[in-house]
Amino acid sequence: MYLTQSLHRALQCHPDRVAVRFGDRRQTFRELGDRVARLAGALRELGMQPGDRVAMLSMNSDRYLEYQMAVPWGGGVINPCNVRWSAAEITYALNDSGSTILLVDDVLCAIAEQVRPQVRSLQAVVHCGDGPTPAGMSGYEALVTSARPAADVVRRDDDLAALMYTGGTTGFPKGVMLSHRNLCSSALALGADGLAPPGSTYLHVAPMFHAADMGLAAPHWIAGNCHSILAAFHPESLLDTIERDRVTHVVLVPTMIQMLLDHPTLARPRDLQSLQVIVHGASPISEALLERATAAFPGVAMVHVYGMTELAPLATVNPTHTGHGRRLAKGTSAGRAGACVELCIVDADGTEVPRGTVGEIVVRGPNVMQGYWGKPAETAAALRGGWMHTGDGACMDDDGYIRIVDRLKDMIISGGENVYSVEVENALARHPGVAACAVIGIPSETWGEAVHAVVVRKPGHDVSAAALIDHCRAHIAGYKCPRSIEFTDALPLSGPGKVLKARLRERYWRDQARQVA
Amino acid sequence: MYLTQSLHRALQCHPDRVAVRFGDRRQTFRELGDRVARLAGALRELGMQPGDRVAMLSMNSDRYLEYQMAVPWGGGVINPCNVRWSAAEITYALNDSGSTILLVDDVLCAIAEQVRPQVRSLQAVVHCGDGPTPAGMSGYEALVTSARPAADVVRRDDDLAALMYTGGTTGFPKGVMLSHRNLCSSALALGADGLAPPGSTYLHVAPMFHAADMGLAAPHWIAGNCHSILAAFHPESLLDTIERDRVTHVVLVPTMIQMLLDHPTLARPRDLQSLQVIVHGASPISEALLERATAAFPGVAMVHVYGMTELAPLATVNPTHTGHGRRLAKGTSAGRAGACVELCIVDADGTEVPRGTVGEIVVRGPNVMQGYWGKPAETAAALRGGWMHTGDGACMDDDGYIRIVDRLKDMIISGGENVYSVEVENALARHPGVAACAVIGIPSETWGEAVHAVVVRKPGHDVSAAALIDHCRAHIAGYKCPRSIEFTDALPLSGPGKVLKARLRERYWRDQARQVA
Repeated sequence: MYLTQSLHRALQCHPDRVAVRFGDRRQTFRELGDRVARLAGALRELGMQPGDRVAMLSMNSDRYLEYQMAVPWGGGVINPCNVRWSAAEITYALNDSGSTILLVDDVLCAIAEQVRPQVRSLQAVVHCGDGPTPAGMSGYEALVTSARPAADVVRRDDDLAALMYTGGTTGFPKGVMLSHRNLCSSALALGADGLAPPGSTYLHVAPMFHAADMGLAAPHWIAGNCHSILAAFHPESLLDTIERDRVTHVVLVPTMIQMLLDHPTLARPRDLQSLQVIVHGASPISEALLERATAAFPGVAMVHVYGMTELAPLATVNPTHTGHGRRLAKGTSAGRAGACVELCIVDADGTEVPRGTVGEIVVRGPNVMQGYWGKPAETAAALRGGWMHTGDGACMDDDGYIRIVDRLKDMIISGGENVYSVEVENALARHPGVAACAVIGIPSETWGEAVHAVVVRKPGHDVSAAALIDHCRAHIAGYKCPRSIEFTDALPLSGPGKVLKARLRERYWRDQARQVA
Repeated sequence: MYLTQSLHRALQCHPDRVAVRFGDRRQTFRELGDRVARLAGALRELGMQPGDRVAMLSMNSDRYLEYQMAVPWGGGVINPCNVRWSAAEITYALNDSGSTILLVDDVLCAIAEQVRPQVRSLQAVVHCGDGPTPAGMSGYEALVTSARPAADVVRRDDDLAALMYTGGTTGFPKGVMLSHRNLCSSALALGADGLAPPGSTYLHVAPMFHAADMGLAAPHWIAGNCHSILAAFHPESLLDTIERDRVTHVVLVPTMIQMLLDHPTLARPRDLQSLQVIVHGASPISEALLERATAAFPGVAMVHVYGMTELAPLATVNPTHTGHGRRLAKGTSAGRAGACVELCIVDADGTEVPRGTVGEIVVRGPNVMQGYWGKPAETAAALRGGWMHTGDGACMDDDGYIRIVDRLKDMIISGGENVYSVEVENALARHPGVAACAVIGIPSETWGEAVHAVVVRKPGHDVSAAALIDHCRAHIAGYKCPRSIEFTDALPLSGPGKVLKARLRERYWRDQARQVA
């Protein structure tokens, strides 16, 4: 099993089918195959040896897709960097990975210049933007044009394919080592669950550096499908692209779905008939949001895929909430174990808990990472007993469907009771004046931790804290309701759109240690 | 990856769904899981150690399915025996595999008694029929009832899962070593090609000892689907079972399709609405037969899957010939490489030949066998250069679709021209008086080899050899037409329904060596 096999298969079966669309640019598989082989040749000429890490710091583009194929084609290991990270975090990841080549687009050029002198291993920087190539960098198109096409090195199976840095939300990021087999297994299993029917068009709008986009695009690679690409998420261009490229499948995080539903562009009539599936994941979706999305996109299946970088990324799929025959009963469940995945909910001792009881999700299977790069102790802890410990708290129903209640570290213990922040956020989200919210535990003399909400109000709504707390009382038990609420203009988000709760908690816990379940 | 994972997943997600139907017997997944764990326990008590081979010699039954799960559950390796083999062949396979336990049903009891004294490794024989248990054997139900359920040993990945004997049509059979990963990879890839949608019911009617049935049932295991089982192929009971069990997917070899279409039962009105897919394979299908089947089963997709035991068994899938939107242009093509499969057509030096040129099919991928049991030389020859050499001759079109022209050893070289027996058989099959036929090369002073046909006439048709040769001239070039024709009542068939051409050739070549391409 190896990543570029799907490209070889597409070249064998339908070289003249359109493979990539990005703005006004488009390529057939034959053209893509040629450019990938040339880029691989160029990277080899720049010094890339088998197993070398090659980093990318770029918004989404057709060149990002070429990078994802050309690096393994030439024998290298991709190291896609989070574009939202600070210079310090990027410097850390590049040094930790020992990347020898960095590709950077126009948007990220400035930060790349800033970090470059501090990254000892870097031998070359390739400018993959459309603007003029800065001094000291190689121009992407010039390289691709002049390089001799390389033959595929065919690293495979347990060979390292990707080093994906994760966990920057708390402390320094860790490099997740994913083998060719890890990535291909997750892709095949998603395919077996029907998530990439042949002839589909997949839209890359979630950031391409992230495991969610890479993982959900992977079965479309295997099916030989077309890739449509948007540089970044914007409600209007998203809908325009779906209409123009006849997109069938798209991955959106809940915050994107929220922004889309709140945007006036939604009112404009468009032909979105091609759209079949919105995969959502990366963070839990509220029932309120799911219901709104279902109403706004009739006939479109809302499929929850839960996973994480360490799982390449598949853990569970919720296929029940599918288009016309929608069944909302399990709508907000994250689904059941994917086709190649073993999944259990366990207690602190690793013993499976009874159905309906909250415990930690652990996963075993061919998709589980090889470990954290250069971190044997963290690897051993995460993979103890042969299972990947996700750190996510969930319970499983009698049908094997899991409901994720919280990151274990986000769970609030207030007056001896467990409060799952997600449940409180769901209640808050049902209020018409709430645009976004996050619930955290803050220190309390009385309760140990007190439930605290950070809320972004919708424009024109000036709902008060007291009114919101009253609203919550109508939906959840009193001890779960926020004791305090602060209002803010925006929540701090990670690259893939997760709320950075650690950052919200920071100023409350500065002077004391927080106990984590 | 391991075979029993799909059973664990079904137990986690839908324990009370019907898992197996066989005649009047049926089981839920919970019941199946319980029986599998108990049978595994019983096998352990009978001495099965991790890696031990356990043989089965039985017609299809629900117990065959239990055997396929219970042996790996208890850590053993399945060794399903061909029920059509002679006592000598069975003895050879059991001795070669060193199987320690043999399960045998009522039908095969006599032959089992015959071979038993000659198999040194056998420690126990389990009678899995419904009649009285013969002396010296353990009763299956008594074992399952009394044994303590075993925990799954979870052998996985590169651990050996199955030893499948193949190639008995020429010389002594070879034991194909298939790992858990081999079998699971093929299954996931078939699932990714849409061959086992969740909620389907798969009918085991092809022999369960054969890789075709095991391989095509495998994605249904992964999808948690229901297994309906018929003891053996009979046209009437096949259609009755499809109707009764609401079967959606079935695998049939061309000879079965032929017998079905020729049988008077087809005229009886039945509700076959549930049937969605007939997978055909194991031997090439003639255009005439495909057209008849298409007409007889409107709305049913005829999907060609080409593979072999050594590929666990997936090589190619032809998905284009699907039900209502049928496209017959590539109808008799074997399809294009499966999702995890790399496939090339190469010349004798292993170099890829141009599209449209006949060469040997070679395959690479996670599904390729580990080798032939105890036969390092044959293994090295079959897997030379890292590719499985199938021995099948084929050409590939510009869309990656292959057309299998012949087993390389069945190809006839007549007057310096290559004649593909399949092409001649296709021409013969178009004649209304031909029920079945096989074309072989026989020694010829003039031509080296001469094209010779063995024909089974339809009842009531007494077409002459000369008339058949004239008929062929209207369809194929003169040098391809049979020079001689013999009529017979039945063709010799292997267990999975392949014509045993070696046996047909035998008496012609007894005194001289035949050159094989």
